[in-house]
Amino acid sequence: MSDILVVGSLAYDTISTPEGRVDRALGGSANHFSLAAAQYADLRIVGVVGNDYQDADLEKLRSRGVDTEGLQVREGKTFHWEGKYEGAMNEAETLATELNVFQDFNPKLPESYKNTPYVFLANIDPVLQIQVLDQVVTPKFVGCDTMNFWIETKKDDLLKVLKRVDVLMINEGEANMLTGQTNAIASSEEIMKMGPKAVVVKRGEYGFVLRSQEGYFILPAFPIAHVVDPTGAGDSFAGAFFGYMAKENKGFDLKTIKEACLHGCLMASFQVQGFGLTRLDALKPEEFETRKQEYLKIIARD
Amino acid sequence: MSDILVVGSLAYDTISTPEGRVDRALGGSANHFSLAAAQYADLRIVGVVGNDYQDADLEKLRSRGVDTEGLQVREGKTFHWEGKYEGAMNEAETLATELNVFQDFNPKLPESYKNTPYVFLANIDPVLQIQVLDQVVTPKFVGCDTMNFWIETKKDDLLKVLKRVDVLMINEGEANMLTGQTNAIASSEEIMKMGPKAVVVKRGEYGFVLRSQEGYFILPAFPIAHVVDPTGAGDSFAGAFFGYMAKENKGFDLKTIKEACLHGCLMASFQVQGFGLTRLDALKPEEFETRKQEYLKIIARD
Repeated sequence: MSDILVVGSLAYDTISTPEGRVDRALGGSANHFSLAAAQYADLRIVGVVGNDYQDADLEKLRSRGVDTEGLQVREGKTFHWEGKYEGAMNEAETLATELNVFQDFNPKLPESYKNTPYVFLANIDPVLQIQVLDQVVTPKFVGCDTMNFWIETKKDDLLKVLKRVDVLMINEGEANMLTGQTNAIASSEEIMKMGPKAVVVKRGEYGFVLRSQEGYFILPAFPIAHVVDPTGAGDSFAGAFFGYMAKENKGFDLKTIKEACLHGCLMASFQVQGFGLTRLDALKPEEFETRKQEYLKIIARD
Repeated sequence: MSDILVVGSLAYDTISTPEGRVDRALGGSANHFSLAAAQYADLRIVGVVGNDYQDADLEKLRSRGVDTEGLQVREGKTFHWEGKYEGAMNEAETLATELNVFQDFNPKLPESYKNTPYVFLANIDPVLQIQVLDQVVTPKFVGCDTMNFWIETKKDDLLKVLKRVDVLMINEGEANMLTGQTNAIASSEEIMKMGPKAVVVKRGEYGFVLRSQEGYFILPAFPIAHVVDPTGAGDSFAGAFFGYMAKENKGFDLKTIKEACLHGCLMASFQVQGFGLTRLDALKPEEFETRKQEYLKIIARD
C-alpha cells in the first residue's frame, strides 16, 4: 500500500433534488474523494477552510487516517455551494457559489507531503493544480479532474496540466466541451492527444469509458433505480479509483487501472444513494464487496 | 434454427445528419429488422408498400431468404418519413410523416405464416400488433417495440400487447415516457409489472439494460466515434436479437436472451455507421465476428 495526496475543495453544500433538500451539508471534492479513498489507503489532504468549519467535520477525515497537516484554516467562511437537480438529475443547476476563503487559496505542501507517490488534483483552478505538481517530487502516478468553468476560462493552463498527468478523470459533458466532440468515444480519442496516458470519461448512470494506448475498457454503472443526490459521485469515483491504485501500488499498470475504474464506478453508485457524504460515511467494506459481486453477475454473459 | 415473423413498416426515408443527407433511402422498421435478422434465420414479413416500391428493394429481402408472401402491394405511395439529427444525434426531429398506403394497413397473415414460432411486432399501431398476434398460433417467443406516439395516443391498447409478449424492446426515452420514470432502471422495473417476461431498454450509444425476473444484465455499446445515421439502430438491435433467438431456438432461455442482446447491440453498432440500410446491406459475417471479439476484449477486466 502507498499513500495518496489530494488537493481540492472542502465545502458546505446546500442541495435540492427531487428526493429532498439539505442545508450546508459537508461536501467539496476533497471530502468526497477522501471518504472513498480512505477505504483503501492513507491520505494527505491539501485545502483551505474557514474558521466556521466544524471540528467534527475535520475529525471525520482524521478518524479515517487522513493527514490534515496540509489543511489551512483561515479567518472567514468556508466555501459554500448551492445547487439544484431536477428530473433525471444529470446536471446540477448552480444557484450560488460563495468561494469565501477559497478565493485566495495558495496551496502549500508540508515537507512530509512532498514525496507522496499517488497524487490527485481534484477540480480546482488548473493554475493551483500546477502549483501543487511543482511541489511534489517524482510522483509515481498523477491524476486530475476539471470542470466546465476552467475549460472555458483557463484552457491553456488546463492543457499544461494534462501534459503532466497519467490520467484525466472527467465527466462526459466536460470531455465533449474540452474537445468539441459530441460523444465520449470521440472526445476520449482527442484527449489522448493532449498528453495524459489514459482518460476516464465518467458517464454517470451509464458507467465509464477508459481510453489508453491499449484501447478501450468500457462498463456500465451499477443499476440504481432511485438516485437521492448525485453531488460528489465523480469525486467518489476518483477516490475509490485512486484508493485502489495506491493499495495495489503498481503505478501505471493497465490491469490495475481497469479494476480501479470498476471500484470507482461502484463507489459512485453508493455515493448517489444519500445526500452529501452520508452514504459513504456509513459504508461498510462488506457492503461494497456484496455489491461488487452483484455487479459482476449483472455484466456476466453466463 | 427456427423461423421469424415480423410485422412493421417498409418505407422510404429522407434523412439529414451532421454527416450528410439521403433522399428517399430504403428504410422502415421491418426492413431494418429483416436485414439484421436474415444474418441468422429465415423470415416472413408482413407489411404494406405502394406501387412506387422498387423491385430491387423487394429483391434485397428475397435474396436473403425473406418470405414476402405477406407483403401487400397497394395502389398509392409507400410510407415516407423525413427526419433530421443534430449534435449528439440522440433524437430525431421528424420533419414529415406521410403514411400513404400505411394509413389503412390491415395486416393479414398468409396460412403459411400462422405457425411461425418467433414473432416480432415492430413499432406500429398496437391495435395492428394485436391483430397480428390474434392470427398466429401458439408462438414460442413474442417480442414487440413501440414509440412515443402510441404511448401518448393508444396506451390502453399498448398495455394489452404487453400482457401478451415475452419481451418488450424499447428506447430509454420511451421506456421513461411509458412509466413516468426518469431512468432505465426504474422504468424497466415498472415495465416488468405490465406483463412482459423481460424488457430490453435500448440506450443508444450507452448500450442496453435487460431486466427479467432473474435480475439485470447490462452492457455498454460498442464504441463508435463517428455515427453517420442512427436511423434504424433499434430495429437492427431487435433483428439481430430475434435472429439469434430463432437460430438457437430455445424459447425463453435467459442465457440465450443475454447473448441475443449482445448480438443486437453489436448489430446496431454497424447500422449507425452508414445511411439507411447501406452498412447492414454490405455486412459480412466475418466482420461481425471480428467486432464481437473486439467488444469482448473491451468489456473484459483482464
